[in-house]
Amino acid sequence: MTEIPKNHPRYESLMAREQITAGVETGITSRQGLIAQGRGEAFDYLIGEKTIESADYAEAVAVCLLLLAEKPVISVNGNAAALAPAELVVLAQLTGAKLEVNLFHRTEERVKKIIDVLKENGADAVLGENAEKLLPLDHERAKVEREGIYEADVVFVSLEDGDRCKALTDMKKLVIAVDLNPLSRTAQTAHVTIVDNLKRALPNMIDMISEFRNMEEEDLWEIVNAYDNNVVLIDAVETIKENLTAKQNEVLGIEDGPDQNNDRSKREPRKQSRIQRNPEIARKVMMRGGDLMME
Amino acid sequence: MTEIPKNHPRYESLMAREQITAGVETGITSRQGLIAQGRGEAFDYLIGEKTIESADYAEAVAVCLLLLAEKPVISVNGNAAALAPAELVVLAQLTGAKLEVNLFHRTEERVKKIIDVLKENGADAVLGENAEKLLPLDHERAKVEREGIYEADVVFVSLEDGDRCKALTDMKKLVIAVDLNPLSRTAQTAHVTIVDNLKRALPNMIDMISEFRNMEEEDLWEIVNAYDNNVVLIDAVETIKENLTAKQNEVLGIEDGPDQNNDRSKREPRKQSRIQRNPEIARKVMMRGGDLMME
Repeated sequence: MTEIPKNHPRYESLMAREQITAGVETGITSRQGLIAQGRGEAFDYLIGEKTIESADYAEAVAVCLLLLAEKPVISVNGNAAALAPAELVVLAQLTGAKLEVNLFHRTEERVKKIIDVLKENGADAVLGENAEKLLPLDHERAKVEREGIYEADVVFVSLEDGDRCKALTDMKKLVIAVDLNPLSRTAQTAHVTIVDNLKRALPNMIDMISEFRNMEEEDLWEIVNAYDNNVVLIDAVETIKENLTAKQNEVLGIEDGPDQNNDRSKREPRKQSRIQRNPEIARKVMMRGGDLMME
Repeated sequence: MTEIPKNHPRYESLMAREQITAGVETGITSRQGLIAQGRGEAFDYLIGEKTIESADYAEAVAVCLLLLAEKPVISVNGNAAALAPAELVVLAQLTGAKLEVNLFHRTEERVKKIIDVLKENGADAVLGENAEKLLPLDHERAKVEREGIYEADVVFVSLEDGDRCKALTDMKKLVIAVDLNPLSRTAQTAHVTIVDNLKRALPNMIDMISEFRNMEEEDLWEIVNAYDNNVVLIDAVETIKENLTAKQNEVLGIEDGPDQNNDRSKREPRKQSRIQRNPEIARKVMMRGGDLMME
């Protein structure tokens, strides 16, 4: 793994990238997992690379649900195992959930390797090797363990495929999903969608357990019943829009100090004093319809 | 390469993913390139997976600049070579630009492999093997060819690192950048930022060349001088915000047909009629500050 100084401004993001790349090298993460990590990075950047309040709320509700569940299962894929194996094991232990390795690009070798990683991180038992085709999906994607996800009442999934998430909710399971894209099918289909980086969500959830574990079941249900996932999804989308506007203003120097503006003046091109806007002439080049530059 | 049916709704995106994965297998794309592809996918999804009008405009201005340039160079990295090798060669041939392989994670082996790929796609000469440390950057990232990027007046880069893009503009080169994140440092630093998928931008630019190649230099400069990159960046950000709002409305069923709404009713969880919102009770769970759920 490349050494990254802890004070690097993008330390967390770069570390995660190193972990996923290392996961590919050891065979627990697929190449598709690298692309998924990139998609996640983009949405995390847009969400501000921090746990927003609505995600914190969803994480609290998720903890309540896991504590209430009779047969909770935490589903683990290659990316999750590369990013936060110890946290997944601790969350399972503190909530009484089973761990099940559940891969989109399933190979028996990867299942075994991920089970080993979880056991190295303290897990006693990990399901996944005895998966059968129990979900109404094609081929390998249909495979889950009868004693695990198939019989679960609450399933925690991270970075899950939309079809599989929907198959679980169709089976009347309550699904908690960690997904940085608030508009993904998984995010829309799950009952509790945590729009947060798994590496921030898990420690936060683990911290919260002590606040909820001694509460009455009735009170936990009250919290869960009061929850509206749409509010969380809308808040995440609104946060992204606000962050886009803020970054846009920063780029335009609207709210920023003189540094940003000075920088801009350094960008003088060689042959013209400045590439500027002139709607009339720009119009000439808009041959393919479109007049949006002219407003 | 996996066979993907042409009528698949996400054909283009899945094909690009296959091409990048194949690029890793043949050694022309790095693992970091897979993560970069994922980031690109996320922004392409947000931009609507089509060439927006402002990107079309930027592509036209980029063609004008390449035709005007005395020493234009098209910089090629591992992702670009995997995604659109033939289009890069044709763009270079039709604009008289040199091709230079220019890698962020440089290895001589990858440089050679990418040169081979471009030659297989019709390129006569490709620079990159005789790169020297000529940019004010650390180590391998400083390497460009003296006869190529170092002496160029206009450089076309795709999926470029922010530091390197800035090094080029600091050297008073005019930089055209293809970058799907309109707020990236590369997007902000380049003179002409094409916020579009490289696989859509290149064929579009190639199509445009015949419209511009017989124009007077003076008229081409008029188009270039009239251009304001900020307008293009702002339009891309606004498009993303609009698309987020549209997708959000779709999720909430605000503008959508009954299908979407019916689907929603299928998501009844087992133990409660519906996970709903009740601000008073939700407040109890907001232990970590924050009242944004209460509005």
